[in-house]
Amino acid sequence: MPVYVVRNAAGANRSYSNLNEGFGKTLRFGANSPAVIERLKWMRDALAPALRAALSLMGPLELKPLIARALHMGDEGHNRNVAGTSLMIRRFAPALARAGVNGEHAAAALEFMHGNDHFFINLGMAAFKCMMDAARGAPGSSMVTAMTRNGVEFGLRLSGTGDAWFNAPAPVPDGLFFPGYSRADAGADMGDSAITETAGVGGFAMAAAPAIVQFVGGTPAQALENTRAMMQITLGRNAAFTLPALDFTGTPAGIDARKVADTGVLPVINTGIAHREAGVGQVGAGITRAPMACFASALVALARTGAGSASRRPSRKSSRSAPRSR
Amino acid sequence: MPVYVVRNAAGANRSYSNLNEGFGKTLRFGANSPAVIERLKWMRDALAPALRAALSLMGPLELKPLIARALHMGDEGHNRNVAGTSLMIRRFAPALARAGVNGEHAAAALEFMHGNDHFFINLGMAAFKCMMDAARGAPGSSMVTAMTRNGVEFGLRLSGTGDAWFNAPAPVPDGLFFPGYSRADAGADMGDSAITETAGVGGFAMAAAPAIVQFVGGTPAQALENTRAMMQITLGRNAAFTLPALDFTGTPAGIDARKVADTGVLPVINTGIAHREAGVGQVGAGITRAPMACFASALVALARTGAGSASRRPSRKSSRSAPRSR
Repeated sequence: MPVYVVRNAAGANRSYSNLNEGFGKTLRFGANSPAVIERLKWMRDALAPALRAALSLMGPLELKPLIARALHMGDEGHNRNVAGTSLMIRRFAPALARAGVNGEHAAAALEFMHGNDHFFINLGMAAFKCMMDAARGAPGSSMVTAMTRNGVEFGLRLSGTGDAWFNAPAPVPDGLFFPGYSRADAGADMGDSAITETAGVGGFAMAAAPAIVQFVGGTPAQALENTRAMMQITLGRNAAFTLPALDFTGTPAGIDARKVADTGVLPVINTGIAHREAGVGQVGAGITRAPMACFASALVALARTGAGSASRRPSRKSSRSAPRSR
Repeated sequence: MPVYVVRNAAGANRSYSNLNEGFGKTLRFGANSPAVIERLKWMRDALAPALRAALSLMGPLELKPLIARALHMGDEGHNRNVAGTSLMIRRFAPALARAGVNGEHAAAALEFMHGNDHFFINLGMAAFKCMMDAARGAPGSSMVTAMTRNGVEFGLRLSGTGDAWFNAPAPVPDGLFFPGYSRADAGADMGDSAITETAGVGGFAMAAAPAIVQFVGGTPAQALENTRAMMQITLGRNAAFTLPALDFTGTPAGIDARKVADTGVLPVINTGIAHREAGVGQVGAGITRAPMACFASALVALARTGAGSASRRPSRKSSRSAPRSR
């Protein structure tokens, strides 16, 4: 299966992702019917070679400025990627025309991307994974470097606790369902797309994307409020990703497990909702929260490393959180 | 010179526009150096034929849904057209690949569009002109159907006053200037792009485009406020063009000259700023207002048609405006 390769230009780490298959019945939502397999073969045999030919002419595509721009165009980078997809098509189209790709193949590749406003998300996820892996391994750090779900459990990692995962039962998301489906069809939260929120985008950047409430539910005011609330639990703001509607402040970035425990504010995750039975695929989209139990057990493990207490300066906040994390 | 042709699918009228040349020295901002002429020749000989070939495969491009979508992606349709341009490229790219256009020509056409985030505006203006012309000729109607400027005068037309133009001196816009230029370089307001505001987009839809303040000045809060203020002077809201940040309300549309006179609220126009001397081109972008004198003289002329008072139901508002418009 062809994959994107995303390199950290300022470090050694890389990340990978497959290409987005589109909506409805797709392998990533557990569907594997003949049509799903047929599409995957076409992606391998036609789409990926066309994109590869274009890339070899273009050189590497810089992802951070593209994502920053998409945030100024109403994407939040998780469940809304229409701008990212558009900007990606703009970059690839001229190179596809020039690369000598068969006209029909180039047209089919461009139509496939144009027909799927979520096409960019897989590349975005690889970019966010690459960013977050660069933050791994800081002794004593309570910064969350990964959040993910497998339909049964929700897991997260902290920078200061090595390879360990801290798990809790995955919540069942609520939101808006595609016609013919309801909450009774929803499986527990699934997928690795919560790497977007880990990187301070997605649910954390909903202030960039008032139109997303038509897809995940809620109101534009709640979208702004979600971003503001996330500022309580992050270590800082990402100056590279700014939010026009909040006077161009940076996205809240670097979830601090201690702040989550201190405030009780749980990370907001915009998520796709998979059917509870295999083979059906995505049935809706909505909002869920990372479970507190993951943060609690991660903080206990961090305290046991000893590095945290040594490197941490005393503060009102950390002394308040101490009883909970020991 | 090749032009877009925009047809009103629900009526008989058509409108036309040339293709956007890009930034800096361009014919539409009064520049006519050899480089400007060279680019116009390339547009005639390579760009337009490529787009025409694509269009003949695609069939007509529906503009209203495209513009509606761009408003959900942070465009206001006058000084911010990055989404409209992106969506246009997405539509044309597959057809260009399939139409058998020479690969190098197709690549150059796609690169030219990609290199100019304002490329869509000329097509948008033609769409807005087509919409507004459909509203011409309603007896007694005080709805504004055109606003335009020629660097000396500002002029407008009402639906109920036929072909007459009502003019006043064009204001000098204030805003943000490109490096090396200042307000002293600004010419009086110029161009027919105020057809966007006439159609309830541009300055009227700034609530869609918080990021535009980086180009025209002001704050995101003022952008929202501009849209809210325009709701005081329009006949209604356009249900086809909605504003996510204002809970998906429609754009304020159909400027009523009587409401302008009643409230003293002048239409907000996002505008490009041309250098006061010919040949230099655009030197900045900013915000200006339509002058009250145009509305006052238009209302006097409307009252003289007699149609207005006959068809107008008595109301507190119209009786208040009567002394001014007679």
